Amino acid sequence: MTPDSAYAELLSRSREATLIASCANVLEWDQETYMPAGGVEHRGEQLGLLAGLAHERATDPRIAELLAAVEGSALVRDPDAPESVNVRELRRGYDRETRLPRALVEEIARTTPVAHQEWTASRRASDFARFRPWLEKIVALKRQEAECVGYAASPYDALLDDYEQGATEAETARLFDALRAELVPLVRAIAGAPRRGNASALRREIPVERQRAFGEVVAAALGFDFACGRLDTSAHPFCTGIGPGDCRLTTRFDPHDFTDGLYSIVHEVGHGLYDQGLPPAHYGTPMGQAADMGVHESQSRLWENRVGRSRAFWEHFLPVARASFGGALDGVSLDALHEAVNVVAPSLIRVSADEVTYNLHVLIRFELERALLSGSLSAADVPGAWNEAYARYLGVTPADDAEGCLQDSHWSGGLFGYFPTYTVGNVCAAQLVAAAERDLGPVDELFRRGEFVPLLGWMREHVHRHGRRDASASALVRRLTGEPLDHRPLVDSLRRKYGELYAL
Amino acid sequence: MTPDSAYAELLSRSREATLIASCANVLEWDQETYMPAGGVEHRGEQLGLLAGLAHERATDPRIAELLAAVEGSALVRDPDAPESVNVRELRRGYDRETRLPRALVEEIARTTPVAHQEWTASRRASDFARFRPWLEKIVALKRQEAECVGYAASPYDALLDDYEQGATEAETARLFDALRAELVPLVRAIAGAPRRGNASALRREIPVERQRAFGEVVAAALGFDFACGRLDTSAHPFCTGIGPGDCRLTTRFDPHDFTDGLYSIVHEVGHGLYDQGLPPAHYGTPMGQAADMGVHESQSRLWENRVGRSRAFWEHFLPVARASFGGALDGVSLDALHEAVNVVAPSLIRVSADEVTYNLHVLIRFELERALLSGSLSAADVPGAWNEAYARYLGVTPADDAEGCLQDSHWSGGLFGYFPTYTVGNVCAAQLVAAAERDLGPVDELFRRGEFVPLLGWMREHVHRHGRRDASASALVRRLTGEPLDHRPLVDSLRRKYGELYAL
Repeated sequence: MTPDSAYAELLSRSREATLIASCANVLEWDQETYMPAGGVEHRGEQLGLLAGLAHERATDPRIAELLAAVEGSALVRDPDAPESVNVRELRRGYDRETRLPRALVEEIARTTPVAHQEWTASRRASDFARFRPWLEKIVALKRQEAECVGYAASPYDALLDDYEQGATEAETARLFDALRAELVPLVRAIAGAPRRGNASALRREIPVERQRAFGEVVAAALGFDFACGRLDTSAHPFCTGIGPGDCRLTTRFDPHDFTDGLYSIVHEVGHGLYDQGLPPAHYGTPMGQAADMGVHESQSRLWENRVGRSRAFWEHFLPVARASFGGALDGVSLDALHEAVNVVAPSLIRVSADEVTYNLHVLIRFELERALLSGSLSAADVPGAWNEAYARYLGVTPADDAEGCLQDSHWSGGLFGYFPTYTVGNVCAAQLVAAAERDLGPVDELFRRGEFVPLLGWMREHVHRHGRRDASASALVRRLTGEPLDHRPLVDSLRRKYGELYAL
Repeated sequence: MTPDSAYAELLSRSREATLIASCANVLEWDQETYMPAGGVEHRGEQLGLLAGLAHERATDPRIAELLAAVEGSALVRDPDAPESVNVRELRRGYDRETRLPRALVEEIARTTPVAHQEWTASRRASDFARFRPWLEKIVALKRQEAECVGYAASPYDALLDDYEQGATEAETARLFDALRAELVPLVRAIAGAPRRGNASALRREIPVERQRAFGEVVAAALGFDFACGRLDTSAHPFCTGIGPGDCRLTTRFDPHDFTDGLYSIVHEVGHGLYDQGLPPAHYGTPMGQAADMGVHESQSRLWENRVGRSRAFWEHFLPVARASFGGALDGVSLDALHEAVNVVAPSLIRVSADEVTYNLHVLIRFELERALLSGSLSAADVPGAWNEAYARYLGVTPADDAEGCLQDSHWSGGLFGYFPTYTVGNVCAAQLVAAAERDLGPVDELFRRGEFVPLLGWMREHVHRHGRRDASASALVRRLTGEPLDHRPLVDSLRRKYGELYAL
C-alpha cells in the first residue's frame, strides 16, 4: 500500500460516510417540515440505522491502517495542503468515533427524534413534566458519550470539543466571564439611556405569504441560490446542507411581527451561504466540509446582525419592504425601523433577543448545561434554575416553561455543548468583519447601495472555500488576523453601534 | 444453528434491508415534491449508495445459509403460516438479487433520478430528443438486468416478474388480446350511442386550495389517516409508504378541471389505504409488505373507479363538493356530474382516460415496452410508434410528444414491466368487488349513505392484513374466489355500467 493509494481509499471511504450522513440530513429536514406526526417512531428507526451504518464505516479498522500508511509520508509534508488537512481531520474523526460503541450511537440517533417530538408537544402545552423523562434520558446518554470520548477536566469538555475543536469548559467560562463583565454594564447603561427605539412600531399585520416573498428577495440579494436551495417553515428555524446543489433553510412567521421571521431567515441564510460556498470538488472530505460550529455561527450571526440589523441594510431594503408589504410599513421611517430592530432590552426568548443581551441568554444555557452534565443539577430542577438565572442576569421571569426552559430544541436533539458556539460565533464574526473591512473599506457603504456580494466574496475567499483547513474559530481567526479569539472587537462594535443608537 | 434462530436472524436482516429501502423512499418522495433542481445529481449519488447498501445486504451469502437452515424444517410446514410466507418470499428475493451485480444495481439507482429530471424537462419542452439518450441508457440497463435475472422466453419476462410474480409476456399478451376483443367493440358502440355525458359541464374554475381541501375531505372519508400521512403535489401523482405511521400521497391540480386532481387523489388513496392496512407488527418482513403491483393497482383502480366514479359516491359527495367549491358547481345535477366523470371517449392521456379506453392506453405501452426490450424498436423510433399505435387503437394523434410518448414518468424511472399491472389491477379489482358484494351486499347502497368503511374493512380483512401471503394478483384471486384471474367480470361490469349510462 503506497501513501497515494491509501489516501485515495481514505477519501473514497470518507465520501461514502458523508453520503450516508447526507441521507440522514434529508430525513431530519423532513421530520421538521413535512413528516406526519405518526411517522416519528419509524423515523427514529431509520435515523438509528443510518447512524449505525455511518458509525460502522467510520470505525472500520481498515481506516487506522490507511491513516498509518499516509501519516508521516511526503504527501502530508505541507500542513496546509488539502491532503494534510484531510488526513488530520480524518484521524481526529476516527479517534473520536472509535471511542463510541455502536449501540450508544444508535441509541442516541433513535432516541432524539422521539425526544424532539415530545419536546414539541411539551412546549406547545408548556408542560415540562412531559419532557422531563426525555431530558433525563438524553443527559444520561450524553454523559455516557462523554465518558467514552474521554476528557481532560470535565465531561462537558468532551461534548464542547465536538462542536468546537479544543474548546474546554474552563476556557469557555473565561470567555463568558469577560463578556459578562462588559455586557452587564452596557445593558444597564442602555436601560438608563435618554433615547430609545420603539419595537412596537413594527407590530403591524403582514400576511405570511408576503413575508415569505420578501424574505426570499432578501435571501437572494444576499447571495443565496434558490436553484440549489429552498425555504420552508418549521417550529425551530434551521439550515441544513444536504449536499452539492441542495441547501435548505427554514424559518417561522409571526403575522404580527415580520422581523421575527425575517431575522430567522437572514440568520439561516448566513449558514446557507457558507454551505453553498464550500468547494464541491472536495465534497465528502474534510476539505469540502464546514469548519466547527463556532465558524458556522460566525457566518449566521454576521449576516443576521452586522448586515441585517445595520442602518445601511435598511437604506437599501426599506423601499423593497414597503412595496412588498402593501402599505403595512406606511409611516415607518428609516430611523424608526433601524431603531426598532435594534432595541436592547432584557427579554425571555433567545432567538428574538437583541445583540447585546443575546450572549447572556447563551451564558445561562451554558451554565445549566454544565450543571446538568456534572450532575449538580437534575433535569427536574431545570425550570427553577432557568427562571432563577433569567432573574439574575436579565431581570425577567418567564410566565411559563414554554417561554422558559422549553423554548429551545437543542437539548431534545442531544446538542449539549452547542450553545456556546453562538457566542464564539459572535466573537469570531466581529474579528472577521474587522479583517474584511481592512480589505474592502467600510462595508456599510456597500450595503447602502445594495452590494452584498463583495462581503460574501471575501468570506468565500477567506473562509468558505477552505473547508476544514482551519477547523476551529480560534484557528481561523489566528490565520486571518494573527490574533487569538478575542471578545474585545465584539464589545467595541457593540459599544459603537449602541452608543450612537442610544446616545450614550 | 436451529431453524428458530436462523429464522429470527433472517427477519432481523429483512427488517434492516427494509429500513434502508424506506430511507430511499423518503429521498424519492422529496425528489418529486420539494428538492431544489440543483440537488438532483447529489440525490442520484445518495440513492445509488442506498441501493448498493440494500443490495449488499440482500445478497449476503449468510442469507443462503439461514434459508437453508429453515427451509424444509417444521417451522415452514404449513404453507400459509407467516413463517412459510416469509421464508418463501425471502428466498425469492435472495435468488433474484444475487443474480444482479452490485455495480448494475447502483448504476440504475444513480441514473434514474437524473433521467427522471431530464424527462421532466423534456416533457415541459415537449422535446423528445433531449430525453432520447436517457431512454436508450435505461433500456440498455434494463436489458442487462433481464439478462442477469434470466428468463424462460423473453427478456421482458424477467422485468414483468419483478412487478407481478409469474407474469410472462405471452400470458400478458393473451390477457390484452382478450380485453381488446371486448373493449374495442364496446368503445365503438359507445361512440355511436344515442345518449352522452358532457365532460365540459365540469370545466369551471375552482381555486387549487379549495380542490385540495375537498380532496382531503374525500380521502379522510374513504378512510385515509392523515395523522399518519399527507398529501402534496408533484408532476406525476404517486403514493409512497415510508413505514408504519407514514404514508404519502401526491396529486396535481388543474384549476379548470377539479376531477383531474380529485381522481388522482382517490387513485392514490387506494394505494394509501392498502399501505395503511398492512400489519405493522410484521413491518420489514414479507408478511408486512404489500403484494405485487397487480394487487396494489387493484386497490387504487378500485377506489378510483368502482367507488369514486359511481353514482352512489356522488350522491354522498355532491353536497360536500357544492359547499367546498363556493358556487362553482351551481346548476350541475347529480346525473350530469355522474355522466361527466364517466364520459367514454378515445383520448391522449392515460391518467385522465375513462375506465373503458384505459386498458387500451396500457396495451399501447405494453406493446412498445416489449418492442424496446426485444430490440425491434429503437428509442429514436418511440414517438412515431407511439403515435401510430394511438391512431390504430384509439383513433387519436398527439399534437406533440408531451401529450404523447413523454406523458408518463415510468420509463425515466426504469419501471419497465410496470404498466401491465394497471390492467391486471383492473381485472383483479372487478373480481374482488364481486367477492366483497357476496359478503356485504351491493356496495352502492353503502356508498350512497357515505359508508365506505365496510368495503375498506373487507379489503383489510381479506387483502391488506395478509401482506405477501398471496404475492400475485392471480394467487390472491384464486384464494378468495377459487377462480383464476379472469377478464370477464371486469368486462361484464363495464358493459353493465356503460350500457346504462349510454342507453346501449
